Amino acid sequence: MNYPNIPLAQTVIQLFKLKKVKHIIISPGSRNAPLTIGFTNDPFFKCYSIVDERCAAFFAIGIAQQLDEAVAVVCTSGSALLNYYPAVAEAFYSDVPLIVLSADRPNYLIGIGDGQTINQKNVFENHILYSANLKLDLKDEHKIPENEELPILKSIEGKLERFLGFQQSIQSHNEEEINNAINKANFKKGPVHINVPFDEPLYELTNKLSVKPKVIEAEARKKKIENFELQHCIEDWNDASKKMILVGVNPPNQIEQRWLNDLAMDDSVVVFTETTSNLHHKDFFASIDKMIAPLTDEEFKQLQPDILITFGGLIISKKVKAFLRQYQPKQHWHIDDNKANNTFFCLEKHIEVHPNIFFTDFLPKITHFVKSDYKTYWESIKQMRNKKHDEFTKDAVFSDFKVFDTLLKSLPNDSILQVGNSSAVRYVQLFDVNPSVEVFCNRGTSGIDGSTSTAIGCATVRDKQTILVTGDLSFFYDSNALWNNYIPKNFRIVVINNGGGGIFRILPGHKNTDNFDYYFETKHELSAKQLSKMYNFEYSQTDSDKQLKLKLKTFFTESDTPKLLEVFTPRLINDEELLNYFNAIK
Amino acid sequence: MNYPNIPLAQTVIQLFKLKKVKHIIISPGSRNAPLTIGFTNDPFFKCYSIVDERCAAFFAIGIAQQLDEAVAVVCTSGSALLNYYPAVAEAFYSDVPLIVLSADRPNYLIGIGDGQTINQKNVFENHILYSANLKLDLKDEHKIPENEELPILKSIEGKLERFLGFQQSIQSHNEEEINNAINKANFKKGPVHINVPFDEPLYELTNKLSVKPKVIEAEARKKKIENFELQHCIEDWNDASKKMILVGVNPPNQIEQRWLNDLAMDDSVVVFTETTSNLHHKDFFASIDKMIAPLTDEEFKQLQPDILITFGGLIISKKVKAFLRQYQPKQHWHIDDNKANNTFFCLEKHIEVHPNIFFTDFLPKITHFVKSDYKTYWESIKQMRNKKHDEFTKDAVFSDFKVFDTLLKSLPNDSILQVGNSSAVRYVQLFDVNPSVEVFCNRGTSGIDGSTSTAIGCATVRDKQTILVTGDLSFFYDSNALWNNYIPKNFRIVVINNGGGGIFRILPGHKNTDNFDYYFETKHELSAKQLSKMYNFEYSQTDSDKQLKLKLKTFFTESDTPKLLEVFTPRLINDEELLNYFNAIK
Repeated sequence: MNYPNIPLAQTVIQLFKLKKVKHIIISPGSRNAPLTIGFTNDPFFKCYSIVDERCAAFFAIGIAQQLDEAVAVVCTSGSALLNYYPAVAEAFYSDVPLIVLSADRPNYLIGIGDGQTINQKNVFENHILYSANLKLDLKDEHKIPENEELPILKSIEGKLERFLGFQQSIQSHNEEEINNAINKANFKKGPVHINVPFDEPLYELTNKLSVKPKVIEAEARKKKIENFELQHCIEDWNDASKKMILVGVNPPNQIEQRWLNDLAMDDSVVVFTETTSNLHHKDFFASIDKMIAPLTDEEFKQLQPDILITFGGLIISKKVKAFLRQYQPKQHWHIDDNKANNTFFCLEKHIEVHPNIFFTDFLPKITHFVKSDYKTYWESIKQMRNKKHDEFTKDAVFSDFKVFDTLLKSLPNDSILQVGNSSAVRYVQLFDVNPSVEVFCNRGTSGIDGSTSTAIGCATVRDKQTILVTGDLSFFYDSNALWNNYIPKNFRIVVINNGGGGIFRILPGHKNTDNFDYYFETKHELSAKQLSKMYNFEYSQTDSDKQLKLKLKTFFTESDTPKLLEVFTPRLINDEELLNYFNAIK
Repeated sequence: MNYPNIPLAQTVIQLFKLKKVKHIIISPGSRNAPLTIGFTNDPFFKCYSIVDERCAAFFAIGIAQQLDEAVAVVCTSGSALLNYYPAVAEAFYSDVPLIVLSADRPNYLIGIGDGQTINQKNVFENHILYSANLKLDLKDEHKIPENEELPILKSIEGKLERFLGFQQSIQSHNEEEINNAINKANFKKGPVHINVPFDEPLYELTNKLSVKPKVIEAEARKKKIENFELQHCIEDWNDASKKMILVGVNPPNQIEQRWLNDLAMDDSVVVFTETTSNLHHKDFFASIDKMIAPLTDEEFKQLQPDILITFGGLIISKKVKAFLRQYQPKQHWHIDDNKANNTFFCLEKHIEVHPNIFFTDFLPKITHFVKSDYKTYWESIKQMRNKKHDEFTKDAVFSDFKVFDTLLKSLPNDSILQVGNSSAVRYVQLFDVNPSVEVFCNRGTSGIDGSTSTAIGCATVRDKQTILVTGDLSFFYDSNALWNNYIPKNFRIVVINNGGGGIFRILPGHKNTDNFDYYFETKHELSAKQLSKMYNFEYSQTDSDKQLKLKLKTFFTESDTPKLLEVFTPRLINDEELLNYFNAIK
């Protein structure tokens, strides 16, 4: 087998292999040649080539999220690395194990005006779990150019021995740093950055490894909740008659069904699930906004929980955040083996285990059936809202709202729905989604910058059909996502093109002034047609509900190329119809 | 006039106006609504709307570079800001005054799981001249949510007075920070970041300003070189018989012609100019690579300068860097009122004034006509190379090389040439460019990520015709650049499409293996045709020199839409022909 000749490149690649980091997304470059050579010559790795680093990193997120394993992106020196940043931040807040591997110039070439050279060390400082700054050699640590001697070795005896000793310690440092970074990504779940300096020549090969790096295992995670903590929880729980469970972003099949069933049976418990929670039970409360948007202050007071339990990632619904901030529960517990956000300014406990572990310990010990009409009350609201929802939806005029209704009803069983930010995912939240459909959305930073790339990453590693539903701004923003050789034939994109940032029409702005249309809504007349042609998607379009229904009948069936369906909706009606909806369900 | 109701937004906008920061590029968002409202309602400002922040910031660079004044980009909170980073780094290394103005959430909403919220403060730490973190109010400084009281005010007398005092000091802090940031951008030349927290409501208007911020003037810059320093320079200069002047990136019309003429007359002086230096004189030495690539070690020794003077920005030619690092001058002086890079590891002096000031003080005092055959020697090399260059070029086969020859000869007088990275600008360096043409290239980080956006920014504010010449990877990378309402009709793009990263075929890789084609060259079959259609460019294409010449005859003439010409070159021949060229000019 061919290896890169540079020992540091061998060290990185061997450790990635030993640590089973398998999926490697490479962007072209010369400084990273030793890594590219190493990864692509070893059949253990599954390598991908993606030119635009912004897309490459979001693509990696899509893969990492689906496989629940660390995925690496590899780039050359210079601004290439900075283009990863939007995805790095997304991974940071979404707890996705993303390893950024950047090639760098040697120290002595940094800050002296060499080309494609920036200050790469710790560049993601604000949004990274770990920054590993690898070292080239002793000389470079002192910023000594190639053709000069190392001053500290000039005057000492036993030069060679000392030099080899230093080198050895640099090798250990590097191995340790690589191990730490990969361990952090895997167990703390999030992005890490490994910066690797290489000096020329970069392209030389060898057929023998000159290093044998050591694996350092990660520390095991806490597996159990402490007894006294559990006891406190049980007591407080049993005393409370209004308990709310709220679940944000949560991967499918994470929570054991028996615990969900347990919770669903309790009259003092309501379980609020966002669409991205991938939790389903007929007695749970999905479509949170639909439930609470029309509530009066009086009702809010009635519904204020005593205990709020949250698990999963970030919460989409602004309305539930506002509700729980104003009508705070007496206690808020967040269950997560990793981190806890004080989203409602009343976080009481961070229970640092996986929800399954907590429920296993907790649910069998609590008193079920505390006498309470909490759930009944919510249940009556749900019944009423659902009825009004159905009535309104039947006759809704063609608009974003109607499109989501039609579209979500037509999703094939056992497919994967990837949703763009931000109005798309907010609309999805208003409807019941087929429980066999897995739902994902980049809600770490809630950016419009990488949804298509993430969806394609997902589609690449899953057999199930992946369907991206996105707005036009988000789609055009990430148009380079389609510059990708790995898009499976069954991949589908639905672009809901309302001619601009429809979300701004819903926010409290100054609609229908020139300034608004231009600087907020950023009105445009673009279509996805040419991009579809450029990147070999089968394209079709529609601007009516009837046609949409017709097109959807065959849209998900087998095809020779991926497909894109563009739905043009009426810009000036969309926000009004949404308003009508919220009035109608009151 | 309508103003945003939030005093902090008023403060920012008033100071920008007082400081004459006029060009404002706004990306859509809600958190930045107070700024958007403020800028777009005041006719002093020239506002632009660009959705993709990566493009917006490179577009701003294009404007700032041409007008030599600070230009601002404005975005909402979250990952939007991170998409500016590639351009921020480019501005940092290219000394372009770019002001990043990011809206942020209040402190109390950061790090608690709110949407579109990241750690924005100091996020560009590694590549920024100044980070101004503005403050919302005293309460928010203590991360106190809206509905809670400020603890330190709970127990003290005279609450209101103290509170107003604190508020006043926060207002002064903010004014000072904004002043500092703008001053740094303007006088230190480079990117600065102003982070502005806003709390809701964001959209309220008022017709009365509630603040009257104070302008703080920047400290004046050093205007003169010290006498003793000048004396040293003169002595060393007069003693040396081999002086080399090397000029990298340098805006047009910066250096007074009389000093250039003076330098050109001296037998002991050679002036090496890169294409991006925008310096022209028949006795200067352009096309550096052409001059020195074929030199032998013996010749290099002969040509090693005693004194090297550099001014301007980064140097493109790798060959001249390698030469001067191996055959170092006894002294290297860099003349710049701002910064000096030790590019050749022998920097002796940083002369901290503008080159015109230095030359005005220096050139009249030196002994001209030190007896030397230094220039004659170089001149003989130049004659020979030019002859061989012309011979080779005449019969060169159709390839990237030939296309650049044809194209550069056809550029209209008094146009502006914007060149992409990285092979494009390297090819341009091999030819003489029409001296009436201004040349620009993003050589700060030398990225492929924003050349089109920068070129469009330039075209937007200049009357002269702007022509972008770029490779295919760079063009597709920045394809969102075309999503822009400000492209003038006379703007032209020439995409030299060699089906991948042609530069990798020139570097010492492992050509024509599958791995190489796929991961280094990133071979593709894309065309710019669909993008041209999507964004209303008149498109044409060619794949022969004859046709190219024909098309170029009308390409630059007046038209109703901007135009794009795509030149398909033979992927497998391009690098060979370049090699043939370097062999031929030996």
